[in-house]
Amino acid sequence: MTFRLPNKKLTYPCNAIVQQSVKPRRLAVSGRCRKLRLSEENRQRMASSGEEVSNKQLIFRDYVTGFPQESDMYVTTGTVKLKPLTGFGVSKVLDSRNPEFKEGDLVWGITGWEEYSLITNPQVLFKILHTDVPLSYYTGILGMPGLTAYAGFYEVSSPKKGENVFISAASGAVGQLVGQFAKPMGCYVVGSAGSKDKVDLLKNKLGFDEAFNYKEEHDLDAALKRCFPEGIDIYFENVGGKMLDAVLLNMRPHGRIAVCGMISQYNLDQPEGVHNLMSIIYKRVRLEGFGAPDYFPQHPKFLDIVLPYIREGKIKYIEDIVEGLEKGPGAFIGLFKGQNVGKQVVVVARE
Amino acid sequence: MTFRLPNKKLTYPCNAIVQQSVKPRRLAVSGRCRKLRLSEENRQRMASSGEEVSNKQLIFRDYVTGFPQESDMYVTTGTVKLKPLTGFGVSKVLDSRNPEFKEGDLVWGITGWEEYSLITNPQVLFKILHTDVPLSYYTGILGMPGLTAYAGFYEVSSPKKGENVFISAASGAVGQLVGQFAKPMGCYVVGSAGSKDKVDLLKNKLGFDEAFNYKEEHDLDAALKRCFPEGIDIYFENVGGKMLDAVLLNMRPHGRIAVCGMISQYNLDQPEGVHNLMSIIYKRVRLEGFGAPDYFPQHPKFLDIVLPYIREGKIKYIEDIVEGLEKGPGAFIGLFKGQNVGKQVVVVARE
Repeated sequence: MTFRLPNKKLTYPCNAIVQQSVKPRRLAVSGRCRKLRLSEENRQRMASSGEEVSNKQLIFRDYVTGFPQESDMYVTTGTVKLKPLTGFGVSKVLDSRNPEFKEGDLVWGITGWEEYSLITNPQVLFKILHTDVPLSYYTGILGMPGLTAYAGFYEVSSPKKGENVFISAASGAVGQLVGQFAKPMGCYVVGSAGSKDKVDLLKNKLGFDEAFNYKEEHDLDAALKRCFPEGIDIYFENVGGKMLDAVLLNMRPHGRIAVCGMISQYNLDQPEGVHNLMSIIYKRVRLEGFGAPDYFPQHPKFLDIVLPYIREGKIKYIEDIVEGLEKGPGAFIGLFKGQNVGKQVVVVARE
Repeated sequence: MTFRLPNKKLTYPCNAIVQQSVKPRRLAVSGRCRKLRLSEENRQRMASSGEEVSNKQLIFRDYVTGFPQESDMYVTTGTVKLKPLTGFGVSKVLDSRNPEFKEGDLVWGITGWEEYSLITNPQVLFKILHTDVPLSYYTGILGMPGLTAYAGFYEVSSPKKGENVFISAASGAVGQLVGQFAKPMGCYVVGSAGSKDKVDLLKNKLGFDEAFNYKEEHDLDAALKRCFPEGIDIYFENVGGKMLDAVLLNMRPHGRIAVCGMISQYNLDQPEGVHNLMSIIYKRVRLEGFGAPDYFPQHPKFLDIVLPYIREGKIKYIEDIVEGLEKGPGAFIGLFKGQNVGKQVVVVARE
């Protein structure tokens, strides 16, 4: 979910701090959404950080305790410098005092959920050099989720030709790519998702060998044994909890689990217990947590691999686009309900 | 725990199968002790496998369901070819039809809990070439536990100079060696154990920087934060359950957990749930299960490293030796009660 192409002014002063608040991605990853705070100190720091312009922003009303609701957020237009939510987005530079960026440059990286952003830490932004693909792809397949899929599969999972690969949340921004990276290696690829539509998408459009709706499986262990009678070599972990427990029972010797996320656990007061960790010993399994930021230096290499796939139509990429910042709260909360199919994108402004 | 130096006859026919039953080490590792079976088919196969000799053996009476008791085992002398328990031991070859072994050779590897063994799969045995150290060491520091410590620390944990290392069950056959491998690398080494004597041993004899008795800590997380205010880089995992859960809260970014065993979990009807696995993502932690058998080809290299340490007194090695096969059941069950201090050895016969 992100912003795209603000159509007015984006500036890069050197020492001000404007954007430092909750990042949707981090929030999704860390479960920190239970306590979000807009302190008076922050407001003052924000207020002293640059010129004030009229700006539409997506704001949290106050602390959020427990699971966030759509009504916890609101869109406001004004000159008050409240902290908006932040996330990965695509933007156009409207003004810059940083010699690395000039007016008209297109960038992707961490920006605010707002029409205009004052960027003071441009190291979180990357210039967009290839514009023959949809710009929204830089919020997904060509941005952080794409790099996540690349790193988690090629770097963390040590894949070998013909191995058995299982991906949970497989129709999401990351999962759909992992499956499509694995297929050209001759892997047998199975995905799980939470609706019939998503399962159909995986099997009929994204080239997965098999897929199942985890909500319709009373026994995940049995579902995995049905799909993987000979066991799993690589599990790309996006959900955690009961699914991880079932997968552990089905790993092959020397299997690898790339731990990308555990979305089923983020909003629980107490994460579920995972009981089958002894399989790690019996099967000599490796579990490894990772995050795309560790792999940012490899982004150009990643683009060299994935851009040709996109241009040649060898990789399909599904987005779920809503128009307007006002749709942000609903789209954000929908992530936790499995509402979106493919990468959720919020368009703030079209060029 | 093992047998040492049977003083009569040990033969190596080529195609018979004599030893194939429960291995104490594997039993300790896998929790399979809940169902041990002596089937009629096995008895017949045993009976057809070679000459019968008078032999003292340690036998399971019948199925063992749940936690094994000392009374589940008995020592018998006879010619009936029941399957004895098996485990790693040191033996002398008394007779051989295999050209690789000759009378008088000393070997270590998987043998029966009995006075004499008929070995038909000599690939599980390794010749002992260095006899200037106690032969019992080949059941420990120079055998499988030593290779386990070596592989888990040097190969799996990717240690770096000066890192923070935590070892559970640290006074055991493996743990005590891991700590002594880590210290010469300038690591800060802390161990946990289950008695004051063991803690004293770690701190005063084995060179650990710190140690604590987990049975006296009501809050393992707090104990770890006290010992590791800056967090843990390497955790050598021997116990699982609550300790693993507490460790996960204290790992540093890019920390490694070498998963060697989970002895607190083997005899539970349902393993405890581990709740803090999300730390794997936040801290980008790697957990890796491993077993010494994967590293047997590196045993000569391992000996080249560890034998000089022993000869020069740079590594101390603690054994807990009981005399006589009759002491086997008590020593075995004692493992699960934390009764032994150091490597538990059962002497079947002295040379």
